[in-house]
Amino acid sequence: MNSPDTALVALDWGTSSLRAYRMGPDGTVLETRADGCGIQHLPVPGEDGFEAAFEAICGDWLAATPVPVVASGMVGSAQGWREVPYLSCPAGTEGLAAAAVTLRTRGGHCVTIAPGLIADGAGQDPDVMRGEEIQIAGMLAAHPGLAADALMVMPGTHSKWAQMQAGQVVRFATYMTGEIFAVLRAHSILGRLMPAEAAPTPDDAAFRRGLERAREGGLTHALFSVRTLGLTGALPPGDLPDYLSGLLIGREVLDAAAALDADRPLLLVGEGALTRRYALALETLLGRRPDAPPGNPAPAGLFRFAQDAGLVSRTKETSHV
Amino acid sequence: MNSPDTALVALDWGTSSLRAYRMGPDGTVLETRADGCGIQHLPVPGEDGFEAAFEAICGDWLAATPVPVVASGMVGSAQGWREVPYLSCPAGTEGLAAAAVTLRTRGGHCVTIAPGLIADGAGQDPDVMRGEEIQIAGMLAAHPGLAADALMVMPGTHSKWAQMQAGQVVRFATYMTGEIFAVLRAHSILGRLMPAEAAPTPDDAAFRRGLERAREGGLTHALFSVRTLGLTGALPPGDLPDYLSGLLIGREVLDAAAALDADRPLLLVGEGALTRRYALALETLLGRRPDAPPGNPAPAGLFRFAQDAGLVSRTKETSHV
Repeated sequence: MNSPDTALVALDWGTSSLRAYRMGPDGTVLETRADGCGIQHLPVPGEDGFEAAFEAICGDWLAATPVPVVASGMVGSAQGWREVPYLSCPAGTEGLAAAAVTLRTRGGHCVTIAPGLIADGAGQDPDVMRGEEIQIAGMLAAHPGLAADALMVMPGTHSKWAQMQAGQVVRFATYMTGEIFAVLRAHSILGRLMPAEAAPTPDDAAFRRGLERAREGGLTHALFSVRTLGLTGALPPGDLPDYLSGLLIGREVLDAAAALDADRPLLLVGEGALTRRYALALETLLGRRPDAPPGNPAPAGLFRFAQDAGLVSRTKETSHV
Repeated sequence: MNSPDTALVALDWGTSSLRAYRMGPDGTVLETRADGCGIQHLPVPGEDGFEAAFEAICGDWLAATPVPVVASGMVGSAQGWREVPYLSCPAGTEGLAAAAVTLRTRGGHCVTIAPGLIADGAGQDPDVMRGEEIQIAGMLAAHPGLAADALMVMPGTHSKWAQMQAGQVVRFATYMTGEIFAVLRAHSILGRLMPAEAAPTPDDAAFRRGLERAREGGLTHALFSVRTLGLTGALPPGDLPDYLSGLLIGREVLDAAAALDADRPLLLVGEGALTRRYALALETLLGRRPDAPPGNPAPAGLFRFAQDAGLVSRTKETSHV
C-alpha cells in the first residue's frame, strides 16, 4: 500500500471531481486517484460528506503513514469544506501559503487549503479563481523562466487566462466557454438538431469552421448559425457540436488576446482533447504555439504550495532525511 | 358574438403562443384572443392538435360568419401545420402572398399561411425568420415612408434586425438574446445567486450597468461578472437578472449596429417591458430613438398579407360593399 517514502498527500478538489496525489519527498507523484466526489457531488451534503470523501480517497494512505495533506480548488470556497478568503492580485504564488487555512479532520489529519485569487483592481469588475492559482504555481515550478512573464491559458468549464509579470499574477480573466457550450447543447434550440451522444472522434474541420466564423464577431448572432447551418443541411448534425465548440473557443481566444497582453510567452495548461482544441485555436487565430508542452501542473503546484507552507522540505537532500 | 362586418380572421401562431384577431373589412381589429397553444404546446401533437387549437380559438367566429383565415409564424415551419418554403431575400413583403400555402381544415375553412424569409446570400451563413416578415409588412402598412428604408429591430426570444431598402428586406440577422438569457438564468451558475422569481419592478440602474459593461466586449468573459458582482456583494441578488439582461441586450445592439447599416430610420417593433428595455439600450448605446412609436404590427401585417392574397378587398370602399 503505502511506500515508506510518502511525504505528502495532495488533493485537487473541484466542483465536479476530486483527484488525490501521493507524493514523494522530491515531489514525485507515486500514485494518483480520482473520483467524482467534487464538492457538489459528495456522498452526503456538508461536513460529513467532506469527511467521507476524504477518507475514501486517501484514508488508507494516511493510515499507513500520517503525512501532511494539502488541498486546492472549490474545497476552499464558501460551499467548500472550509472557506479560505481570496488573496488579491497582483499576487505571487509563494504568498498562497501565508493565506492558507488548516483544518483538522475527525481522524486527526491536518489539511491545509490554498486560497483562491481575486482580481479586483479599480475600474474593473472583480474576477475570481480557485484551483488555477495552484496550476500557475506548478507552471512556475516547471518552467520558471518562461512562466514568470507568460500569458497562461487554462481551458475548462470556466477558462482562465492569467497574465504574469515578474512571477506575479497581475491580471486574469474568466471565460464561461465550457459552461455555455454545455447549457446551449443541453437546454437551447441549438441542441435540438445535434445527436444525443458526442461523436467518438471530434471533427476538426467543423471546429475550424467555427473558429473562422468567430472572427466575424457578434457571438449571439453567430450562435444562431449553428441552427441555420443544420436546418439548411450545410452542416450534418454530427458536426454541429464541433462547430459550436469552435465558435465559443474561437471567440474566447480572440477576446482574451485583445483584453490581455499577449506579447509574451504563451503557456497552455491541461491535457487531453480540450487542450488540443485550444492549441488549434491559438494557432489558427493568433498564429501562436504554446512555448512549452501542455500538461497537468496541479501536482507540482500543490507540492510547491506545501513547501511554501513548511509542510515538506524544500530540498531533496533534507527531505530524504 | 360575431358582428356582421367580420371580414378576416388572422392568426399569429408562434412556438409558444397563439393570437387570433377578428378583423373588419378596413383592417380594424374587432376582437383579440390569445392562448398558450403555440406549435410546441398543442393540446395533442400533430394534425389533431392544430385542428383542436384552431377550433378553440376561432371556431365560433367562423361558425357565425365564414370568412378567410390567414396565419403567420412557426405554424408554417417543418414542425408546423403545413410547411411553407422560405422566400429568399432580397424580398418585398408583397411577394409573401404568391409564396403562401393554403390548407383546408376538417371544418372546411381555408387557412392561408405566409412563408418565412431566408437570407442566404453568397459568403454569409443562412439566416431565417418566420412571423417577423408579417411584422415588417405591418410596419410598411403603418409607416410606408419611414419603413421602406428603415433598420427594424424586433426583440424576442430570437431577436431579428432587418435592413430595408426601397421597401424590400435586403438583409437581416438573428440574435439569440432572449433564449440565452433564459437558459443561463435557469441552467447555469449565473442563476444560482438570483432570486427564483423575477422582480415585480425591473431595475433600470442594474440594466444600465449591464449596458455599459457590454461596451467592453468579450461577452463570455463579461457574463462571468454576473457571478462575481453577486459573490462580492457589489450587486444584490435581485439586480442580477436585470444586469444580465443589460449585458446581452447591450451586446446585441452594439453588434447589430456594427454589422448592419444603421444610418437610416430606426424602427422598434413590439410592446411591453422588453420593448421599453430595447428603447433604453438604443438610446444609451447608439444615441438613437425609434423614429416611430413601437407597437404590435402583426394584425396590420396579416391584413396586408390577406389583401395581397386577394382574400379581402384592398380599399375601404369596396370592402364595405
